[in-house]
Amino acid sequence: MNNSFFSRFTPKEPKFFDLLKQLSDVLLVASDLLTKTILCVEQEERMDYYRKIKEQERKGDQLSHRVFEELSTSFITPFDREDIHVLADYLDDVIDRINSCAKRIAIYNPKKNVKEASDLAGLVKKDAECIATAMEELEALRKNAIHLKARCKELHDLENQADDVYELAIIHLFEDEKDGIEIIKTKDILYELEKATDAGERVGKALKTIIVKYA
Amino acid sequence: MNNSFFSRFTPKEPKFFDLLKQLSDVLLVASDLLTKTILCVEQEERMDYYRKIKEQERKGDQLSHRVFEELSTSFITPFDREDIHVLADYLDDVIDRINSCAKRIAIYNPKKNVKEASDLAGLVKKDAECIATAMEELEALRKNAIHLKARCKELHDLENQADDVYELAIIHLFEDEKDGIEIIKTKDILYELEKATDAGERVGKALKTIIVKYA
Amino acid sequence: MNNSFFSRFTPKEPKFFDLLKQLSDVLLVASDLLTKTILCVEQEERMDYYRKIKEQERKGDQLSHRVFEELSTSFITPFDREDIHVLADYLDDVIDRINSCAKRIAIYNPKKNVKEASDLAGLVKKDAECIATAMEELEALRKNAIHLKARCKELHDLENQADDVYELAIIHLFEDEKDGIEIIKTKDILYELEKATDAGERVGKALKTIIVKYA
Repeated sequence: MNNSFFSRFTPKEPKFFDLLKQLSDVLLVASDLLTKTILCVEQEERMDYYRKIKEQERKGDQLSHRVFEELSTSFITPFDREDIHVLADYLDDVIDRINSCAKRIAIYNPKKNVKEASDLAGLVKKDAECIATAMEELEALRKNAIHLKARCKELHDLENQADDVYELAIIHLFEDEKDGIEIIKTKDILYELEKATDAGERVGKALKTIIVKYA
Repeated sequence: MNNSFFSRFTPKEPKFFDLLKQLSDVLLVASDLLTKTILCVEQEERMDYYRKIKEQERKGDQLSHRVFEELSTSFITPFDREDIHVLADYLDDVIDRINSCAKRIAIYNPKKNVKEASDLAGLVKKDAECIATAMEELEALRKNAIHLKARCKELHDLENQADDVYELAIIHLFEDEKDGIEIIKTKDILYELEKATDAGERVGKALKTIIVKYA
Repeated sequence: MNNSFFSRFTPKEPKFFDLLKQLSDVLLVASDLLTKTILCVEQEERMDYYRKIKEQERKGDQLSHRVFEELSTSFITPFDREDIHVLADYLDDVIDRINSCAKRIAIYNPKKNVKEASDLAGLVKKDAECIATAMEELEALRKNAIHLKARCKELHDLENQADDVYELAIIHLFEDEKDGIEIIKTKDILYELEKATDAGERVGKALKTIIVKYA
C-alpha cells in the first residue's frame, strides 16, 4: 500500500492532477452559467446561455478524452489508471448534467421560472466549488485524507439538500400550476437539476473509492 | 485466489458482515413500511409513513458511511475493500429508492391507489427478504457459492416480474385514467417502484462480481 | 502488463470472445427489429414486434448469464474476469433498453409516429453495428488498440447525434402536439430511445477501461 497513489503520480505524473483541475474549472464555469440560465425568461436568451454551456460541455469532453489518452499511453499501473479514468468520467458527467439542465430550459421554454429551480442551480454551483477544492486536495491525499473526506461529506449533504428542495418544489408545482403541459416541463427541469447534484455526489463516491484504496 | 474474501475477513474482520446485515435489516423495515404506505389514502397518513421511511433512509446512510469509515481504517487489501464498498453502496441505494417511492406518494398525493402499485411494493419487499438472506450467506461464500448464486437469480427474476407488472399497470392507467395530471403522478410512482426492483437487481450484480472474483 | 488480457484469453479462453460476439449478434437483431417497430401504426403489429424483441432480450439474458457462469468456473485471474463481466453486462443493457423502447411503443400505443423516433432507432442500429465490429476487434486488442479506440469514439459520437435529434424532437413535440397525454407518451418513447444510445456509449466506456488496462 506504500507504493500507492501519491508516490506513483508525484512528481512523475503531475499532468493528471492538472487535467482534473482543468476539468473542475470547466465545471465551475458551466455551473455559474447555469445559475444565470435559470433566471432568463426569453427563449432567445435561454438559447444563448445553453450554447455557452454547450461549449463548456465540449471542453469537458475533450479534457476527459485527454485523460483517457494520457492514461493509455503513460506508464502507470493499471489499478490506478482505472480510478483516474472513473474520476474524470464522473466529473465530466456533472458537466453533462448541467448541459442537460440548460438544454431542457432552452427547448422546453417554460412560461414561468419557479424559485426552487434557482435554489437547485445554487446547490449545483456549490457542488462545483466543492469539487474544485477536492481536486486541489487530491494531490496531498496521503497526508490529508481528512480534508478530502470532508469534501465527500459535503457533496453528500448538498445532494440531501437538493432532495429536500426538489420535494418542496414538486408539492408547490402541483398546488400552483394547473396547466398539465407546464407541469411536465417544470417537473422535468427540476428533475434534471436534482440529477446534477446526484452526479456531484457520485464524484464524491469516486473520491471515496480512491480514499478507501490509497489513503 | 486462496487468500481471498473469506479468509481475509473471517475471523479477523467480522464487522463488515455484521454491518451489511444491519443494512439489510434496515432495508427489510423500509420495504415493509412501503407496503403500508401504498395502501394509505389520506395525505397526512402518507406523510407519516414517508417520515418513518426517511428515518430508515438516514439509518442506511449512517451504516453505509460506517462501512466506508471502517474500510478506510482497517487493514484489508484494496481490492476487497472496493467490493465491500460497492455492495454497501448498492444496498443503501435500494433503501434510497424505497424512500423516493414513499416521497412521491406523499408529495404527489394521488387521488387513487392502483392495484399494481401494491404488487410492485410486494416485489420490493421480496427483494429485501432475498437480500437479507444473501447477507447471511455471504460469510460462507467459498463453501456455498451455489446459495448466493440462487439469490442473484432470484433478484433478477423479481426484477423481471416487476417489469411485467409495470407494463400492465401502464396499459391500464392509460385506458382507465383520463385526468392528465393523475396520469403523470401515478406513472411516476409506478416508475419509481419499478426502479426500486432495478436497484435490488444491482445488489445481485454486485454479489455476482464478488462470486466471480472470490468463490 | 505483459501477462494481460490477450495472452490470458487466447488461445486458452476463446469462448469469452465467442459469447460476446453472440451477444452482439443478438443486439444486431434486436436493433433491426426496433427500426421496424417504430414504423408500425397498429397496436397489434406493435405488440408483435415487441414480443419478437422480448425473445431477443431473453436470449441476451441467457448469454450474459452464461458469461457469468463461465467466468465463475474458468481459471482466469480475478481482474480480467471483472472486466469481461462488466462488458457483457453493458452489452446486455443495450438490448434491455431496446426492449424497453419497444415495450413503451406497444403499451403506450401513441396516435402518431414522429419522424425523430425513426432517426433515433437508426442511431441505435448504428450503435449495434459499431459494437458488433468492436467485438470482432477485441481479440486483437494488443496489436490494434487503435481500431477499438475508433469504435469508442464512434459510440460517443452516435450518442451526441442522438442528443441533438432528441432535442429537436422535443422542440417539435411541444410545438406541434397539443394533447397532453400524447405528449407524455411520445416524450417517454423518445427519452427511452435516447437512453438506448447512452447504453451504447457505456459499452464504449467499458471498452475504454479495458484499453486503459490492457492495450
